[in-house]
Amino acid sequence: MSNSATQQDIDTVLERLKEHNLSGKIIVGEERSIIGVVGASIPPTLKEEIERFRGVQEATRITRPYKQASREFHPHDTIVNVRGVIVGGKQSVVIAGPCAVESEEQILRTAHAVRDAGATMLRGGAFKPRSSPYTFRGLGEQGLKLLALAREETGLPIVTEVMTPTDVDLVAQYADVLQIGARNMQNYQLLEEVGRSRKAVLLKRGLSATFEEWMLSAEYIINQGNPNVILCERGIRTFETATRNTMDLNAIALVKRRSHLPVISDPSHGTGKWYLVAPLALASIAAGADGLIIEVHPDPDRATSDGGQSLTCENFAALMPQIAGVAAAVGKHLQVPMAVPA
Amino acid sequence: MSNSATQQDIDTVLERLKEHNLSGKIIVGEERSIIGVVGASIPPTLKEEIERFRGVQEATRITRPYKQASREFHPHDTIVNVRGVIVGGKQSVVIAGPCAVESEEQILRTAHAVRDAGATMLRGGAFKPRSSPYTFRGLGEQGLKLLALAREETGLPIVTEVMTPTDVDLVAQYADVLQIGARNMQNYQLLEEVGRSRKAVLLKRGLSATFEEWMLSAEYIINQGNPNVILCERGIRTFETATRNTMDLNAIALVKRRSHLPVISDPSHGTGKWYLVAPLALASIAAGADGLIIEVHPDPDRATSDGGQSLTCENFAALMPQIAGVAAAVGKHLQVPMAVPA
Amino acid sequence: MSNSATQQDIDTVLERLKEHNLSGKIIVGEERSIIGVVGASIPPTLKEEIERFRGVQEATRITRPYKQASREFHPHDTIVNVRGVIVGGKQSVVIAGPCAVESEEQILRTAHAVRDAGATMLRGGAFKPRSSPYTFRGLGEQGLKLLALAREETGLPIVTEVMTPTDVDLVAQYADVLQIGARNMQNYQLLEEVGRSRKAVLLKRGLSATFEEWMLSAEYIINQGNPNVILCERGIRTFETATRNTMDLNAIALVKRRSHLPVISDPSHGTGKWYLVAPLALASIAAGADGLIIEVHPDPDRATSDGGQSLTCENFAALMPQIAGVAAAVGKHLQVPMAVPA
Amino acid sequence: MSNSATQQDIDTVLERLKEHNLSGKIIVGEERSIIGVVGASIPPTLKEEIERFRGVQEATRITRPYKQASREFHPHDTIVNVRGVIVGGKQSVVIAGPCAVESEEQILRTAHAVRDAGATMLRGGAFKPRSSPYTFRGLGEQGLKLLALAREETGLPIVTEVMTPTDVDLVAQYADVLQIGARNMQNYQLLEEVGRSRKAVLLKRGLSATFEEWMLSAEYIINQGNPNVILCERGIRTFETATRNTMDLNAIALVKRRSHLPVISDPSHGTGKWYLVAPLALASIAAGADGLIIEVHPDPDRATSDGGQSLTCENFAALMPQIAGVAAAVGKHLQVPMAVPA
Repeated sequence: MSNSATQQDIDTVLERLKEHNLSGKIIVGEERSIIGVVGASIPPTLKEEIERFRGVQEATRITRPYKQASREFHPHDTIVNVRGVIVGGKQSVVIAGPCAVESEEQILRTAHAVRDAGATMLRGGAFKPRSSPYTFRGLGEQGLKLLALAREETGLPIVTEVMTPTDVDLVAQYADVLQIGARNMQNYQLLEEVGRSRKAVLLKRGLSATFEEWMLSAEYIINQGNPNVILCERGIRTFETATRNTMDLNAIALVKRRSHLPVISDPSHGTGKWYLVAPLALASIAAGADGLIIEVHPDPDRATSDGGQSLTCENFAALMPQIAGVAAAVGKHLQVPMAVPA
Repeated sequence: MSNSATQQDIDTVLERLKEHNLSGKIIVGEERSIIGVVGASIPPTLKEEIERFRGVQEATRITRPYKQASREFHPHDTIVNVRGVIVGGKQSVVIAGPCAVESEEQILRTAHAVRDAGATMLRGGAFKPRSSPYTFRGLGEQGLKLLALAREETGLPIVTEVMTPTDVDLVAQYADVLQIGARNMQNYQLLEEVGRSRKAVLLKRGLSATFEEWMLSAEYIINQGNPNVILCERGIRTFETATRNTMDLNAIALVKRRSHLPVISDPSHGTGKWYLVAPLALASIAAGADGLIIEVHPDPDRATSDGGQSLTCENFAALMPQIAGVAAAVGKHLQVPMAVPA
Repeated sequence: MSNSATQQDIDTVLERLKEHNLSGKIIVGEERSIIGVVGASIPPTLKEEIERFRGVQEATRITRPYKQASREFHPHDTIVNVRGVIVGGKQSVVIAGPCAVESEEQILRTAHAVRDAGATMLRGGAFKPRSSPYTFRGLGEQGLKLLALAREETGLPIVTEVMTPTDVDLVAQYADVLQIGARNMQNYQLLEEVGRSRKAVLLKRGLSATFEEWMLSAEYIINQGNPNVILCERGIRTFETATRNTMDLNAIALVKRRSHLPVISDPSHGTGKWYLVAPLALASIAAGADGLIIEVHPDPDRATSDGGQSLTCENFAALMPQIAGVAAAVGKHLQVPMAVPA
Repeated sequence: MSNSATQQDIDTVLERLKEHNLSGKIIVGEERSIIGVVGASIPPTLKEEIERFRGVQEATRITRPYKQASREFHPHDTIVNVRGVIVGGKQSVVIAGPCAVESEEQILRTAHAVRDAGATMLRGGAFKPRSSPYTFRGLGEQGLKLLALAREETGLPIVTEVMTPTDVDLVAQYADVLQIGARNMQNYQLLEEVGRSRKAVLLKRGLSATFEEWMLSAEYIINQGNPNVILCERGIRTFETATRNTMDLNAIALVKRRSHLPVISDPSHGTGKWYLVAPLALASIAAGADGLIIEVHPDPDRATSDGGQSLTCENFAALMPQIAGVAAAVGKHLQVPMAVPA
């Protein structure tokens, strides 16, 4: 309450709390009083409601608004199993592949190369969100078929983006992990649709999403009965323009403390520059990430999108032992690739 | 080029430009050389492509990537006509109403109140995006019907949000203006769907969207053949937490210079505090905004959402003459409400 | 407290509060308890101290940490009188002049022009902070002398920046208002030195300073016994690069609510583009600013610094009546210039 | 040039360039033309100057404005030697100690503890910048004397902050490394004063400083003849409030590419939470940092400042072998502490 609040102002607040079946406790101070409220059923809009009252200086919410994504209510690490590939726990997963699926030759060549280097999942975009309407937007279902073909040849489970609720069924027919892109982190219909699908979900953090909003978006998916959420930090937007985004590795370490969900890192989008991918990949593992998703292209300077941040197959192969080294230094190990299907 | 670039590095870049049917011109300096390229058909990804080349220090795009939204290619102001209400030009439009439609009594009471005060359009959310899955998300189609009823009673055209491509047809049956919310500014399927609908579109700026990305999202809509785009600045996310968002009035003035589209301002979301709505509404008009969209609720402290930023009907009525005064000071005038339907 | 906190955890917190002569009150809830503390003598570091304790989930400070700058403890507007020019209250002050003093001819010509157009104070930099060591940094004391000469000729009080504590005495010999630049908003020795000087102080907001930090910097000055603080919003740094800075007019309106100090606006630095200065000047007045500080240069395209954001004398003269119009629309009026000294 | 620029507009730009002894080359395109300029002597303000001209759409600077800090002009790594402790190259340096020097007992106890754990330099603040005037601001010269005593006992060189130009001589009498705090990164008089001192300088990045501004501040120091600059990333200010700051490890990796200067990381300020210090310390080393500066306090919950982000001596001792492990994984090694002075 402000220092000019009257007893009547306080009583009005208390009455309103009663209407919500809540009981406020007053703490009287020299200059001002505060009213504390606790309860499992505090409406999310109570803060706004109360702040309008006369004599109220500020209302502050202390309890975190997410529960199912919170470690407090679920102390043990969630482990997501994707066709035998484990995400979470003591293993570090490396997902690699091109930004966009461009052709059969391109995706197969990349899939074999990243598998040979030790990656255990394949990424590739069939539906691409692009800020300009004049840019390549992916091969669509044809891209999904090429990904499935690459899985058949290499045994690598596939991760691919779904952009709109009506596409979820289609993409889920092919994909092993449904990726929610940064621009869609708060597309709630899409979150609920992938929540109903029961496929594992890779939930990228929005460009300007707070930690709490990210957890709430995970909550949307879990709340539909799908606990297989893998978080992905991919850089946030800040004032800095020397890199495409600013990777927030604080957030990765914070996920491990506040949530039970596995979290991986995307240093390709997080930096936007191929020559920064290796140091940030290593840094992410050291910060506690459960894995990485890295763009690899056999010929990055002819890629249809994001070539500037893609590693060549050779650079990726050179990076993998370094990742293994840092993983070992923090008590983890790279997954051993499974046998190729006969 | 970097200062260590060789002639061969330069030649390689020139050859690649040729593959794109572009011709680069070299400008030789004491320390380094630069290669300039102009042309209407420069691929959007050329910058990334070229930056990977050996000897290239940096590639910079100078031409703006949007055209149909640009004043350069369309010098005259676009005027959007919504059932006779003019947006753009010398008139200032005021759109008012509750954040969410809650009940027949609430929306009718608000519609009459804002009309009596001089508003010429009615806003109200039937589908609400909410960051928590545990919060009220709107009445859906029932809300649309109540808005239509309010329009019938007051003659006010209605503005309401559509959140997902499959809802566009439904919402367009009722709404006069389709609102694209900040979280959906880069939901490209949705942009294209409202682009195909031919209804007027209110395109809110994303929370962390740059000016250029905002223009590109308008481009998506116009590119589907719908020129009736009304831009809306509603605050951006910055480090400042004393207000809910930071209103970017620079951007409003910049729209008037760089684009031909009308732009309005949403001081309710832009500040998040009802007591800052009036000063920022006036400031927006002074900065050149073509109008305002303001949250008004007959009983804000019992609103189901965003009550803390809503004006009461009385406060709104008191604000309208002030808006008229500032509009007059910058050479504009408030629209005269049309006659109520008999 | 977290939901796993034990009674002993709670007791430990209570004991520590006792050591500070504070008494905590417990509010017990279903899932967790909270401990409330009120008092005028809560140490600023208590939050950090308590957050380390076992079982403590989060500590939140509710009371604002500034007092002397706060309207709560000083309800009436502060009016600053600078040689008869009033800042605050119902008058709008316009301070104008070049970014840097360059020559006698330049400063005199500008001073006369801005005075003739209705400005009531003259600005001009003698000591200039520049991000590159290779850039013009001002004429120093010679610049101060030229400013004093311009004051003698025109009667306009002068505002000029002081950058380092040891220069305060020197600058104060010439200046009527000591300007603290954005980069120095948290240069505490400098704040205290100008606090001791008793000259009026123009305190620019730091590029990334929160509202609260800005008020605390004012507190530093007032705390030395100098109540003549004029706040100045000049744009903050955000992700947006289409303009030099993002003007935060929300903050101007918030100053009027939370503080008693006058606040002016600097649309020249706030936008960085001369063609945005007029709309943002008008918007600032409409938002409640007590005045403006505007860069004017007789020949901006030959200015030694910040030419791109300076108005020509003609543009400035054309802007003044518009400012007067908007000021009138919000119940204020432009100051009438005083008689020129004989 | 804009697409409406006339030949005369182009000629006017070319003439102005001639006045600067620069020659512009025109590249004519279908829709517009561009004018390219190269040269070692382009004035820093040319961009602003040219942007005002009629027909000019935008002026873009491509060359980087810093030289002496740039790897392009100084390809080999700079190694800074502080009383035999090497910063840069293949060794990882760990600087540890309390935020503020509080007492002889505290600083000596901490110094011994961090030395025993393997730190090779001691940090401690004698002059503390604090955002509130009501907070502890350090012991001043008495603090410096206690640091010198700790050096005498442990052999650890000392790093301490200097806040104002007039204190440089005093602080340099005691310190081995002069620390420039984040708030002072653009205090140019201070940068030049430490530039003249010839002591090694630890230059913290400003809270909202771009990469380029940081390099330019280093340039200020080097330009006075002092090449012994150690950069320090300590977190930037973003929209995220779940952590005190956002560590920008992208910037650490970028320093290694664009500059020859050594760079260390401050995970204590970068996260603001003691439980995030270890993961971010390891991540920084993995990203390529040449070392760490870590806050350690024997009794953090009674520290006079920043206790919430300090490690206990025990936690620090437990962290050191992990740092050694990650350093080894990226081809570096922790420094071996020197023999204690007899």
